[in-house]
Amino acid sequence: MSAAELYATYKTKMQKIADVKYASAVLQWDQETYLPPKGNNFRGRQLATLSEIAHEQFTAEAMGDLLHELNSKENLSASQKKNVALSLEDYNRNKKLSSKFVRELSESVTTAYHAWAKARSENSFATFQQPLHHLIQLKKKEADLLGYEQHPYNALMNEYDKGLTVATVDNIFTNLKPQLVTLLEAIKNKPQVDNSFLHQHFDKDVQWKFGIELLKQIGFDFEAGRQDLSIHPFTTNFNNQDVRVTTRVDENDFGNMAWSCIHEGGHALYEQGLPTEEYGLPLSEYCSLSIHESQSRLWENCVGRGLPFWQHNFPLLKKMFPQQFEALTADTFYKSINKVQPSLIRTEADELTYHFHVMIRYEIEKMLIDGSITTKDIPAYWNQNYQKYLGVTVPDDKRGCLQDIHWSHGSFGYFATYSLGSIYGAQMYASIKKENITTEALLAAGDTKPVLDWLRKNVHQYGRLYTSEELCHKITGETLSSAYFIEYATKKFTDIYAS
Amino acid sequence: MSAAELYATYKTKMQKIADVKYASAVLQWDQETYLPPKGNNFRGRQLATLSEIAHEQFTAEAMGDLLHELNSKENLSASQKKNVALSLEDYNRNKKLSSKFVRELSESVTTAYHAWAKARSENSFATFQQPLHHLIQLKKKEADLLGYEQHPYNALMNEYDKGLTVATVDNIFTNLKPQLVTLLEAIKNKPQVDNSFLHQHFDKDVQWKFGIELLKQIGFDFEAGRQDLSIHPFTTNFNNQDVRVTTRVDENDFGNMAWSCIHEGGHALYEQGLPTEEYGLPLSEYCSLSIHESQSRLWENCVGRGLPFWQHNFPLLKKMFPQQFEALTADTFYKSINKVQPSLIRTEADELTYHFHVMIRYEIEKMLIDGSITTKDIPAYWNQNYQKYLGVTVPDDKRGCLQDIHWSHGSFGYFATYSLGSIYGAQMYASIKKENITTEALLAAGDTKPVLDWLRKNVHQYGRLYTSEELCHKITGETLSSAYFIEYATKKFTDIYAS
Repeated sequence: MSAAELYATYKTKMQKIADVKYASAVLQWDQETYLPPKGNNFRGRQLATLSEIAHEQFTAEAMGDLLHELNSKENLSASQKKNVALSLEDYNRNKKLSSKFVRELSESVTTAYHAWAKARSENSFATFQQPLHHLIQLKKKEADLLGYEQHPYNALMNEYDKGLTVATVDNIFTNLKPQLVTLLEAIKNKPQVDNSFLHQHFDKDVQWKFGIELLKQIGFDFEAGRQDLSIHPFTTNFNNQDVRVTTRVDENDFGNMAWSCIHEGGHALYEQGLPTEEYGLPLSEYCSLSIHESQSRLWENCVGRGLPFWQHNFPLLKKMFPQQFEALTADTFYKSINKVQPSLIRTEADELTYHFHVMIRYEIEKMLIDGSITTKDIPAYWNQNYQKYLGVTVPDDKRGCLQDIHWSHGSFGYFATYSLGSIYGAQMYASIKKENITTEALLAAGDTKPVLDWLRKNVHQYGRLYTSEELCHKITGETLSSAYFIEYATKKFTDIYAS
Repeated sequence: MSAAELYATYKTKMQKIADVKYASAVLQWDQETYLPPKGNNFRGRQLATLSEIAHEQFTAEAMGDLLHELNSKENLSASQKKNVALSLEDYNRNKKLSSKFVRELSESVTTAYHAWAKARSENSFATFQQPLHHLIQLKKKEADLLGYEQHPYNALMNEYDKGLTVATVDNIFTNLKPQLVTLLEAIKNKPQVDNSFLHQHFDKDVQWKFGIELLKQIGFDFEAGRQDLSIHPFTTNFNNQDVRVTTRVDENDFGNMAWSCIHEGGHALYEQGLPTEEYGLPLSEYCSLSIHESQSRLWENCVGRGLPFWQHNFPLLKKMFPQQFEALTADTFYKSINKVQPSLIRTEADELTYHFHVMIRYEIEKMLIDGSITTKDIPAYWNQNYQKYLGVTVPDDKRGCLQDIHWSHGSFGYFATYSLGSIYGAQMYASIKKENITTEALLAAGDTKPVLDWLRKNVHQYGRLYTSEELCHKITGETLSSAYFIEYATKKFTDIYAS
């Protein structure tokens, strides 16, 4: 067969596998949004079967032969070569996991998820411990099967951000931590910001309408996506013309929904901006979860918690909630939404203390995977470190180590990408402002397009063409550096806590 | 391998295939309820891939060998034997269609569906004609591949109701038609019923609430299902603990939603009543589409358009819409919702003229499949027969031959089951009342449980154990006879049109 024919075969196979994976994503989306309670009884096995099929098809010997043969062909375009090389890389990695193992993992996740939900409702980590322990054993096995250098956790982080290592993350966190501590100390000694008016009553429907307006404003295409409600906000997609975000609304906390819309909207803009014509192929996929998170954080924090954005939007918001915001100006509103306050819940944390939430989880995961601790040690370690780094006393497991869904999903190696995302986001935002000095003036006039255009051109269009580090260097001229985040945060919070 | 081991293997395989089929159902449900417009671009291929996988797995040689071997084993239980025999029957039928053909069909359906939607919005059959023609060629090929005696349409009807033939349906319709004509003539000469108050303004949310109440009342389990909005009401399920109905609401037509809720609710009760422990196996499946329709029609018409049901529910309804129903009693309301009026739209037709809508489509399908007419003849044939049987002039294609979704789905052979469903339903309802003479007194007191209990015991629990005809004979003591429907309808409409 000619290279062109082989490539066509490869493309057909990959697209069929994508169909199965995206079907899974539809079932997962439904599970989090509309599934009736008893529907869960069979949903787990349906998802496991789809995972198994996708895995079997992708790791079939014939697929390996095809990829090897294609990889040796010269007369393919550069992007075709890249697709093949990335698929071969994925193939070699996936091949290390048997279908049986993948199914076992999928079923263990279903069990762990239900145990976690039960544990949360009972407010008792004990209910979750054993299923989590089982899942971690499988993740350790996964790390062994995948192989690694230096630390088993590297194998798991690599799944979310190719090439990411404990050494890199430790280094970033080691730099970041003392600077954050200094900044927080300075803030602590200033008069505190009042954000009590965010905790008035805000009608659910009006909040929802405002959230939709924010999504439209940042460029979310509602012809190619939608927003629904779920307990935990998330973004998923079934191809880049069907990208779904979810949010939650708290009538007594204005901060709960608006920034979750912008955050998930940032993820969704990335998905909507990936190349359509590469459906099912690596170049249609996102670069890494760190870069994915850079998109959500950049929109949520750099844009969505910035003064210029609210210079435009606060008057709109005030029209929707005239009574609640009567006494505020854009400036006082801006300050209130950036209040720094060490707290128990990661998803409600401010931009600064957020990183400590991530660091604590990162340390726990590393130790669970290398065996320094076991699941029964989690609550104590968690509570001690919340006291140590955030100065807060964890009153119970629900507001402690049971708060996040990730472990119940088996997503070990994921958390660090949250902090890296903020750091990448700040570095990109600095580039955006440098390349277009009117960026924030335009934001203040309600024009977010230049920001989206820059991201479309510099991030979205490339899909998986580069690794996080390569992309970062290409588009910002430097490797990842927490200096930009620290510079951004110092300027912002010094201004806010000036008086 | 022992029979038990072989059976376990069979069950595992069947359940995995069910997982894939039910995943398709989730994607289809989503397509009709929440899919954003551009999401359609890839949804068709995702559905085609899942169909192909399910078909490939079910028609694999290994599956055939397994089924043949199991079928020869003695030491299986009666229900195990029945599962195997039915699966073998399905296997032999499916085996006649190649995966390539199944995919071609699935893709042709997607094309036809979009062409139909476009044709409807343009109000022009011409847009739909060519894709429909292509689809019909494939259905004719399907009939040839499946094989048949006497008429190719038998092969297609057999897919929806095992053993159903043109001879049977022709016979039923030949009996039914003159009796309906006589009944309609009698009604025509009586003072007509006023139903104008059903066309006042009815708040959407209040209607929705009332629909939910009706579903609860007939026994729909909201822990194992839900209701959503869609353009065309339908019922689907992803296992019998996750059964979903949809409805539509017209603020200017009270009749649009309430009976669609009861109708789909009747389908849903059947699915919720099928045996859970047989997940993925034939005995967990419904008997036939005729029997499925008997459940929806029995609830919608015999119960839901009956006087006893509204003796209980009209007071509730009046509380929800006090102004609109001020001048009415349960009795006048009952009459109004049973107004007989030949009309253009099948889904809005009364119980009597409904059958003519079905007969016309049935005749068209038969002729399209045996080649007596081609797609270009449809509008003329349609319009002539609506004039002839219903006395109505079809003003345009949208209200004529483009009104139903079925052909765009490739569902040829389906329509007759609608009439058969009514006839089976009336026959069952006669048995219910005979076995429990207090049935209607209980309905008037708001107690629908005896009806559901009878259906659970006599219909639902058996799954696919019997054919429609076998089941009918077993539970009513007779084969299918339109006499029960005619008796029921004559009594009902003679009373309504008494004065």
